[in-house]
Amino acid sequence: VAPPIDPARRPAPYGTEPLALREPLPLDDLPTPALVLDLAPFESNVASMAAHLDRHGVRARPHTKTHKCPEIGRRQMAAGAVGLCCAKVSEAEVMAGARLDTLLVTSPVATADKAARVAALAPTCRELLIVVDSERGARLLSDAAAALGVVVGVLIDLDPGTHRTGVTLGAPAVDFSRLVRSLPGLRLEGLQAYAGHLQHVHGFGERQGRARETWERVLETRHAVDADGAATRILTGGGTGTFDIDPGVEGLTDVQVGSYLFMDVEYRAIGGPGDAPFEPFETALFVLLTAISQPVPQRITVDGGFKAFATDSVRPELLDLTGVKYHWGGDEHGILELQEPSRPIALGDKLRVRVPHCDPTVNLHDGFWVLSNGVVSEWWPIAARGRGE
Amino acid sequence: VAPPIDPARRPAPYGTEPLALREPLPLDDLPTPALVLDLAPFESNVASMAAHLDRHGVRARPHTKTHKCPEIGRRQMAAGAVGLCCAKVSEAEVMAGARLDTLLVTSPVATADKAARVAALAPTCRELLIVVDSERGARLLSDAAAALGVVVGVLIDLDPGTHRTGVTLGAPAVDFSRLVRSLPGLRLEGLQAYAGHLQHVHGFGERQGRARETWERVLETRHAVDADGAATRILTGGGTGTFDIDPGVEGLTDVQVGSYLFMDVEYRAIGGPGDAPFEPFETALFVLLTAISQPVPQRITVDGGFKAFATDSVRPELLDLTGVKYHWGGDEHGILELQEPSRPIALGDKLRVRVPHCDPTVNLHDGFWVLSNGVVSEWWPIAARGRGE
Repeated sequence: VAPPIDPARRPAPYGTEPLALREPLPLDDLPTPALVLDLAPFESNVASMAAHLDRHGVRARPHTKTHKCPEIGRRQMAAGAVGLCCAKVSEAEVMAGARLDTLLVTSPVATADKAARVAALAPTCRELLIVVDSERGARLLSDAAAALGVVVGVLIDLDPGTHRTGVTLGAPAVDFSRLVRSLPGLRLEGLQAYAGHLQHVHGFGERQGRARETWERVLETRHAVDADGAATRILTGGGTGTFDIDPGVEGLTDVQVGSYLFMDVEYRAIGGPGDAPFEPFETALFVLLTAISQPVPQRITVDGGFKAFATDSVRPELLDLTGVKYHWGGDEHGILELQEPSRPIALGDKLRVRVPHCDPTVNLHDGFWVLSNGVVSEWWPIAARGRGE
Repeated sequence: VAPPIDPARRPAPYGTEPLALREPLPLDDLPTPALVLDLAPFESNVASMAAHLDRHGVRARPHTKTHKCPEIGRRQMAAGAVGLCCAKVSEAEVMAGARLDTLLVTSPVATADKAARVAALAPTCRELLIVVDSERGARLLSDAAAALGVVVGVLIDLDPGTHRTGVTLGAPAVDFSRLVRSLPGLRLEGLQAYAGHLQHVHGFGERQGRARETWERVLETRHAVDADGAATRILTGGGTGTFDIDPGVEGLTDVQVGSYLFMDVEYRAIGGPGDAPFEPFETALFVLLTAISQPVPQRITVDGGFKAFATDSVRPELLDLTGVKYHWGGDEHGILELQEPSRPIALGDKLRVRVPHCDPTVNLHDGFWVLSNGVVSEWWPIAARGRGE
């Protein structure tokens, strides 16, 4: 009989540090499906986002929900990030355990158990912030903090129109900021306005117009909250889709970028300034697959399906090859429709495939095989994979 | 610096045995999102499938790709299964490591590294079978087996019309069976005919008609292969959707059922005999979520989205509650549209949600919280989660 455990506090299964392979492997020798991080474009993406934000005097607060990997968070901090965002409390616990301890939890909690976990985590961090958006959540958090004799820094989560979480802009936000300031276990540090619904608006002009209009309404609310005595220090929001729109916003302190690290089919499709495609960042993530079967001449079956790629949006896309269309082939397979393949594909061939949506795809895998100069020498554990609590 | 590892042979992170919780938890005290196995209906499903197949003199060869959990495989074996199916080689490695050692790998391999892993695994098992469907794959496997001085038992994977993997029925299958029998490292044991495309055909009559027609063509091929001298011992195929159709097939030895354990929204929708719904098995799996935010009166946001449920098919469905529709709310959230809720939902409430598609949903989670008599006392590791290789 195994010793009793607390599965809610299970350890990161492969640790939080990069692991060296016993010997470097050529890319095509990886066992597939393999999630591959292409190091040179990845490092370029990290550096170019940092330089871009630096030019505008805004900091990054990159989202660990995209990568779930302490090594990547460490590199983002080294490139100048003000801290890291975590989607959930359990994700923050993993990051804090890897000594990444300037964290913002971007989803509210509404139960005593989660509030207690936040309060317990706070003193182990240099700075732990969490958003609040309901009286219930705020009171539970204050009570949990008071019970431990700590004060938890909070941001009010504003609803900029996504209608997913957050307090309604205007008077409701001002009223809520008064409540938050009245609670002894909380310290109001600022506001979060994450416009998730704008990140994938197609067409730069449309996206820019809607983002600016949204930010204007957010700023009116910030002014009202501050005029009421809150003196908010932080205004955080934005993402990869609006990375070149948000930095001009008055008083914005940091942007919650994530997908710029990797890029994916979804983001490439949103369009950049003018008629240009959205390609400010390079594709640095792919899944390597193997052609394993050819049941009929017009098709080749590969060894990755619903368990290798997130399926919430578009289809995977072949890299280095045109005239071939990926179709879902169930949990374990993809089916390549051979329209006019730009080169022949034979059984056993390895194929690089761009992921449809990077965040939930990364969450399917246990680690990144890190590709550099054609060989893989390291495996970076996706330590917070599956931490949805 | 961590010691070098072979990520392709990483250990099952939380072991392969059920873990006892430090103290039993009432269901509503679980940290959410939580994947919950409801033990009583689960045990009923295992028993009723076993009894059904027993009545027809057919064995189960249940699919571990559905559950990825050695404890569940063990219970299926105890209920009379002839062995277990594994979708991939790495899944079989995990099961064999948990002493579940009568295994069939249901996807072909087409590379030397995978062939070598199969050959190395075979002597550690009571019986390891794998399907073959290409000359390349068969030769690589025979070479790998010969290099280790072993003989690997194989089934020829037939393509019953799914066009995903498998050899074409008729003469191509007979020709291929000759090749397989000529290879020194292989021992031809039988045929696999898995009609994945028929499992979710809506309407029992339509499904029955197409399944019977397909099996007729498969049996013709089996007779031809056997007449050619192969004397196949095994004919395996079928699944949960055709569980009440397949057992009548002449010479069928075992059925590759999987989803009957848990049930999901997809399978419930396919329809049973007459106009009845497809409800031969009970819902034994759900995700427990928490209501965490209410940005607008008509909506409540819950804490599970693309990372809590597989998104390849339909939407999650609320259990114990009508008049409420789940909408995807991104990676981390779902949005409940409050149409005419049959009871009020307040922030902090826990909600049981039926999963759209069980297999890839299970693969998102690290373990099952096992519910019995209203409390959770055990956590069963999903030891082969993420093993797609």
